[in-house]
Amino acid sequence: MSERVVVLRPRYGEVDSMGVVYHAHYLVYFDVGRCEWMRSAGTPYAGLEARGFRLAVIAADVRYLKPAHYDEELSVATRVTHVGGASVSFAYELRGPGGLLATGHTRLGCLDLHNRPVRLPPDALELLRAGISPPAPPSESP
Amino acid sequence: MSERVVVLRPRYGEVDSMGVVYHAHYLVYFDVGRCEWMRSAGTPYAGLEARGFRLAVIAADVRYLKPAHYDEELSVATRVTHVGGASVSFAYELRGPGGLLATGHTRLGCLDLHNRPVRLPPDALELLRAGISPPAPPSESP
Amino acid sequence: MSERVVVLRPRYGEVDSMGVVYHAHYLVYFDVGRCEWMRSAGTPYAGLEARGFRLAVIAADVRYLKPAHYDEELSVATRVTHVGGASVSFAYELRGPGGLLATGHTRLGCLDLHNRPVRLPPDALELLRAGISPPAPPSESP
Amino acid sequence: MSERVVVLRPRYGEVDSMGVVYHAHYLVYFDVGRCEWMRSAGTPYAGLEARGFRLAVIAADVRYLKPAHYDEELSVATRVTHVGGASVSFAYELRGPGGLLATGHTRLGCLDLHNRPVRLPPDALELLRAGISPPAPPSESP
Repeated sequence: MSERVVVLRPRYGEVDSMGVVYHAHYLVYFDVGRCEWMRSAGTPYAGLEARGFRLAVIAADVRYLKPAHYDEELSVATRVTHVGGASVSFAYELRGPGGLLATGHTRLGCLDLHNRPVRLPPDALELLRAGISPPAPPSESP
Repeated sequence: MSERVVVLRPRYGEVDSMGVVYHAHYLVYFDVGRCEWMRSAGTPYAGLEARGFRLAVIAADVRYLKPAHYDEELSVATRVTHVGGASVSFAYELRGPGGLLATGHTRLGCLDLHNRPVRLPPDALELLRAGISPPAPPSESP
Repeated sequence: MSERVVVLRPRYGEVDSMGVVYHAHYLVYFDVGRCEWMRSAGTPYAGLEARGFRLAVIAADVRYLKPAHYDEELSVATRVTHVGGASVSFAYELRGPGGLLATGHTRLGCLDLHNRPVRLPPDALELLRAGISPPAPPSESP
Repeated sequence: MSERVVVLRPRYGEVDSMGVVYHAHYLVYFDVGRCEWMRSAGTPYAGLEARGFRLAVIAADVRYLKPAHYDEELSVATRVTHVGGASVSFAYELRGPGGLLATGHTRLGCLDLHNRPVRLPPDALELLRAGISPPAPPSESP
């Protein structure tokens, strides 16, 4: 598996008084994309947690290109870009009717139940590594 | 202690595209009021949780009278209206520069770490009971 | 059209440290249900706003029966229970794998762009009225 | 004015099931810091909006160093790092009882009421420029 796309519609309370989605919610949309990527890859996040592993965001960035609006259909395309022993990095593209709206990245560290860094379990590591996508070539840029 | 008032300012992301605070955030403001009430009463909620007790909202209602706006100074007045062995009820009034904006109530049930109903610890029960306020007389209505 | 059901999965950030969905988000889920009801009825809310009408929540209540959890599939069943000239009332049932999780109601008032009460436009009134569902008989209770 | 510090306490619904503040809320805390910075500098954001100017986030990044917890007292230290004709950049440090919890940056572009890029008004430009802080020297790092 490489890229995984999930569709969502911004909710009313996610739109601010400028009439566009408030910037902090983009990290939530990326989280939804990441959650679906992991489910598709066969290693759903809820399952990892049930086994005592947690993925905590340790770095995030977002570039906001065009605004997103209430109730329009958006897609979040999620890729894994790097897998370390105890961390995994994701890249995201948010698209709407008007094209590419935002791009972003998050790096997550694996923690145990006591919030101590810990290696990802071998089966999850394998599934995550199998899903690594190379960065898109420049010609595919928006 | 009877009523406890806490001041807050609506944040930008809490305002929707009508230019007013999105209705779901009123429950969050009430939660802030309840949290401060409990701290003032000598039984901070974080302390209850550290001892293995949780208060889960089992019923809530809100009446929205006037809109609240970004960054204006609001006050949440919180009272305890009833204390059972395993539950406690709060009433709230949200006020802004233009007067009374909303009223509401929540009833919370006490749970243990396994989400089973459980009696509140005796010291918390005593402090909560000592803080019960009778309902305001009709003449104080807005 | 009478009842309309929409499916959603609680997001990670919507779950609190008790491991269950934070109570304020139920109003957001009800909003998602209401939005889908209106779309299905042929009067999408975004369209009403584009014509200068707004529906503001003026009263809301929720009863929380069982907790909802991260990533489990929930359904929101939404009905219209009353339509006045300038207001509309909705009832909601939130269900999960374990049955009925919560019930709730909201009453919304129609406002113009200056936040003044105003009659709903005739076509919307007609579609809303055509969708009124009588309350479920007692035997259908959970 | 250079740095401005605002104090806040994470709310219950901002904490996720790991028992720590959900990562998207850090952008909200930074927004609170930015709002207070602008108020202190004599150019409150609500006033800019009332005059038809808006500041939209066009880039954001966060580094998460240590977790933040429910109800503990946090401080957000906000600085302006760059002011262009139609944009302004802020840097943030979030601190808690255990030291530095997170750092971040946002770049905002000025828009008019039609969401078109526009120069900031001269008085705001002057106040923002007067508040630029040079980056802290390395010896002040945590």
